[in-house]
Amino acid sequence: MMKRKIIIDCDPGHDDAIAILVAAAHPGLELLAITTVAGNAELGKTTLNALKVCEIAKLSGVPVARGAGRPLVRDREAASEIHGDSGMDGPILPDPLLRETEEHAVDLIIRMLMESGGDITLVPVGPLTNIAMAIRREPRIVPKIQEIVLMGGGTFGNWTPAAEFNIWADAEAAQVVFGSGAPVTMIGLDATHQALATPEINERIMAIANPVAGFVGELLTFFGKTYKEFFDFDAPPVHDVCSVVYCIDPSVFDCRFLNVTVETRGELSYGMTLVDIHGVTGRPPNATVALGLDHGRLWDIIIGALSRYK
Amino acid sequence: MMKRKIIIDCDPGHDDAIAILVAAAHPGLELLAITTVAGNAELGKTTLNALKVCEIAKLSGVPVARGAGRPLVRDREAASEIHGDSGMDGPILPDPLLRETEEHAVDLIIRMLMESGGDITLVPVGPLTNIAMAIRREPRIVPKIQEIVLMGGGTFGNWTPAAEFNIWADAEAAQVVFGSGAPVTMIGLDATHQALATPEINERIMAIANPVAGFVGELLTFFGKTYKEFFDFDAPPVHDVCSVVYCIDPSVFDCRFLNVTVETRGELSYGMTLVDIHGVTGRPPNATVALGLDHGRLWDIIIGALSRYK
Amino acid sequence: MMKRKIIIDCDPGHDDAIAILVAAAHPGLELLAITTVAGNAELGKTTLNALKVCEIAKLSGVPVARGAGRPLVRDREAASEIHGDSGMDGPILPDPLLRETEEHAVDLIIRMLMESGGDITLVPVGPLTNIAMAIRREPRIVPKIQEIVLMGGGTFGNWTPAAEFNIWADAEAAQVVFGSGAPVTMIGLDATHQALATPEINERIMAIANPVAGFVGELLTFFGKTYKEFFDFDAPPVHDVCSVVYCIDPSVFDCRFLNVTVETRGELSYGMTLVDIHGVTGRPPNATVALGLDHGRLWDIIIGALSRYK
Amino acid sequence: MMKRKIIIDCDPGHDDAIAILVAAAHPGLELLAITTVAGNAELGKTTLNALKVCEIAKLSGVPVARGAGRPLVRDREAASEIHGDSGMDGPILPDPLLRETEEHAVDLIIRMLMESGGDITLVPVGPLTNIAMAIRREPRIVPKIQEIVLMGGGTFGNWTPAAEFNIWADAEAAQVVFGSGAPVTMIGLDATHQALATPEINERIMAIANPVAGFVGELLTFFGKTYKEFFDFDAPPVHDVCSVVYCIDPSVFDCRFLNVTVETRGELSYGMTLVDIHGVTGRPPNATVALGLDHGRLWDIIIGALSRYK
Repeated sequence: MMKRKIIIDCDPGHDDAIAILVAAAHPGLELLAITTVAGNAELGKTTLNALKVCEIAKLSGVPVARGAGRPLVRDREAASEIHGDSGMDGPILPDPLLRETEEHAVDLIIRMLMESGGDITLVPVGPLTNIAMAIRREPRIVPKIQEIVLMGGGTFGNWTPAAEFNIWADAEAAQVVFGSGAPVTMIGLDATHQALATPEINERIMAIANPVAGFVGELLTFFGKTYKEFFDFDAPPVHDVCSVVYCIDPSVFDCRFLNVTVETRGELSYGMTLVDIHGVTGRPPNATVALGLDHGRLWDIIIGALSRYK
Repeated sequence: MMKRKIIIDCDPGHDDAIAILVAAAHPGLELLAITTVAGNAELGKTTLNALKVCEIAKLSGVPVARGAGRPLVRDREAASEIHGDSGMDGPILPDPLLRETEEHAVDLIIRMLMESGGDITLVPVGPLTNIAMAIRREPRIVPKIQEIVLMGGGTFGNWTPAAEFNIWADAEAAQVVFGSGAPVTMIGLDATHQALATPEINERIMAIANPVAGFVGELLTFFGKTYKEFFDFDAPPVHDVCSVVYCIDPSVFDCRFLNVTVETRGELSYGMTLVDIHGVTGRPPNATVALGLDHGRLWDIIIGALSRYK
Repeated sequence: MMKRKIIIDCDPGHDDAIAILVAAAHPGLELLAITTVAGNAELGKTTLNALKVCEIAKLSGVPVARGAGRPLVRDREAASEIHGDSGMDGPILPDPLLRETEEHAVDLIIRMLMESGGDITLVPVGPLTNIAMAIRREPRIVPKIQEIVLMGGGTFGNWTPAAEFNIWADAEAAQVVFGSGAPVTMIGLDATHQALATPEINERIMAIANPVAGFVGELLTFFGKTYKEFFDFDAPPVHDVCSVVYCIDPSVFDCRFLNVTVETRGELSYGMTLVDIHGVTGRPPNATVALGLDHGRLWDIIIGALSRYK
Repeated sequence: MMKRKIIIDCDPGHDDAIAILVAAAHPGLELLAITTVAGNAELGKTTLNALKVCEIAKLSGVPVARGAGRPLVRDREAASEIHGDSGMDGPILPDPLLRETEEHAVDLIIRMLMESGGDITLVPVGPLTNIAMAIRREPRIVPKIQEIVLMGGGTFGNWTPAAEFNIWADAEAAQVVFGSGAPVTMIGLDATHQALATPEINERIMAIANPVAGFVGELLTFFGKTYKEFFDFDAPPVHDVCSVVYCIDPSVFDCRFLNVTVETRGELSYGMTLVDIHGVTGRPPNATVALGLDHGRLWDIIIGALSRYK
């Protein structure tokens, strides 16, 4: 079986951590690199968290490259209400021995794509700053990208009534990505709000009884608590891992090929993704949009991957 | 039984016509006046259509007052794709003998409210231009308004991916209304897209076998055709009459009291209503928002009212 | 000699007061009415100030009609730093015996224009709310307007780096006026910043030695002080009276017929007038724009008019 | 005498060419590199033009590095009306033998700054895309930048009534630069519209009688023609060389330290620089703004430098 090659660009983040852990363990994927970006927390923290997750997963061979510390144009704002002060509050982890690469995330993404045969998928699950910077710095990567399977956006918002956090956190970068001509798949809130870690799912994870699954359980406990407080959700949605599962098996998701644009000018709606479901804009489709998912199959894949850890 | 006093401000429009017909016939309502506005078609046509509907309903005692021919600030754009060239294509009606009032819609609204004991509900089912002009011209009407039960907006759009037509057609007027301090109830697409005139409903309407019901059937035939072509709906939603049914029996609707603001600056999202369902904005609630409805009870009320015509 | 008929729409305001006084005394003008608007101060204060100015000028026959207390769409912000708490700080005046009309400013403007033979000039020297509301409430006044000689805008700003106060205070109203099709003359900062009440001018006014001139002297003393503090001007500019002088003798001004649009969406540049001096936009001219004035002739007219008071 | 080290970032462009030629010849400057950007023409043309200018100036030791082919976020639009199809129409030049570097402009700027002792001045005279990309890709360059002496902006516009071309062409990049914290000097239209190549100046340039001066004369002939046609100027302004002259002798310019922000959201005013001359915004100064220049001394420096060519 051919493994699908992916680079995860992330800002761990609870659901980012789960995304890395599933990607590293699943036999259908080859995780080439992890690149980091400011988002759920500042860049130093998200990079440290990525290293901690790699250490827990014993992922010593996957480079972790630090990227953009702030959005392409605007000033940075954090989501610390959701992920806690460290960006990944909950489990207590020792400082990692693993070290990040000297290479900058943007340079790594450009290099790997230019050296590739067009078979690398980018999986950005944080703000799109690194991806946009790579596209602008080296436009020749665009035809080399197999697919960009991003977590972000949707037909409704969470951070504001109109905007999902990752897109809102750098709407200009998102505009660059959606307008790039690369094949974009948007795993947004329409799908990820169905990816709930219900009590029954939690039990199944706990039953795995390996240290990684225990770590995931602790992440979900904290994440569930803030999602309850902040959004009044009964169970937390594991947004970012959905993009990884899409790379493993796209048929888990209900998708449509639609036009998506990003609002960068609105006073109230900055960072909104406009998904033209009814084709009223006359603009041609430019993104595969996930509008739903199969909860059972999603969790089977996640739990299957987590079970492979020792 | 106390009848609830309402003024319908409209731009007929197929669903506007049904709204008038139900309001005129239902024993729980006293229809004080009909005011017109440009929207689904230009002002001359919407006013003519309002008179035609009154004539069909033998509503000779209800004044029809012509209002604003264009939005408060922006230029006008029409929705002729949906309602046809006349604004109410489908049924062929003779020119009405009824005449509109000399009084301007804005003056009529101000006068009736100022003379009232605070017991008049405004039911705007087109762009909000007349209501906004009245509020700005005579701010003392605000505490006299019992409720504004508007059809418009929603957590998603129809005219653009972000915006519903009535709000998009005059977002500045909508901003005035939502910010006025008057009690606003928003019957938006979340509810009205459930108010579908299915084939079974059509049969029930046809079975009424009075001329008004026949006219409504013809309206729904045309409206169903354009909704199929333009939006790929299997049955047309009767948006505007939902506001009238709310005045008759609010319990038909699932409502929440939420903050709603209107985007007037966005490039792509102009005219969007931002409904703060999760309370993330920190802005206080200012509107009762319909998020769903009881399809059976809605149509029972509509069909019951239409059955009262001879 | 034919007197030119004018209605002054104002928010007194120091320079508004001088505008009224010159208009009332000059033999070339017939002051039909004074209408008031919120701007330099809240509506109650600007209306009271207008009445006080009428009383000082013994203008008992000119109706004073109260208009809009807030902008067409946005919330109101005041310019109290410039005009003091009363809106016309400096001279101490008794409460006036004169009373405002029952008629609303917007109704008065519409009525006078509709009854006229097309020979009335509107002279708005505050925010353009009343004028915009009249145009939208009764579009048939547009061809009846001889000219709108407004004070506002310019190729640079004063209230923000981009925007002059009157336009900034209600940019949506300004957009309505500039887009109305009526003949608009814009007396903006390019001209009025040359209309400085220098010490030499002050001496000439004091030398008139009638009570009205004394009152004007007191106004200029206060206005000069705030202009020094706030804008570091050595002498205060008498913006509003420039529009009145234009009605008396347009040749005092250097004007060009240019395209002017109003920014209502910018984050930083809200309320800017974009004056297309070099014709780069391709949009057709819609306003006569004053770009300079003859300081000597301007003050000769003002001082001549003030000298007619007893 | 210490030479001031500069990197010129440009989009030649007639006035860009003169800027390079003066910088290369003046004994007070050390031209470290030339980087190119899309702007007056597409990137291939501006890079080719830069090489041609280097060849005419016998500048074989100065690296020419190709940079961004499009703006940071938005789509590209060209200024071909002003600079002709080649971006530098007028003189006919052979294809250059010189070659651009392999190194990308953004990488070169970052490398030279990081290797420097903080003594390099950036002189961007085109859209600010490369500078913004370098700042975002490697934020540690900011304290290494001695000064950014950019040509762009002003208190009025040329490309639109509000915006100067270089800022308008990439307003998001300009926002990054003005907000970066680096010392920014803005040589905008207030100054450069005084830098006119009058007939008398032309005669002095022609009298130099070396090939470079002849080339400059041909540039000015073409540029003068388009400035007459497009903007109705009697003589063309040599915008870009002003930034170079500022590096040689800042005292040629009247400057003030002021707050400057860039409008990126306005519908009509996109790309405007808001220069807070009167300190009304309350925002702290962040840029040295040239508001005028000494025409005689400017041209003495330019002509002196051009005279050094053989």
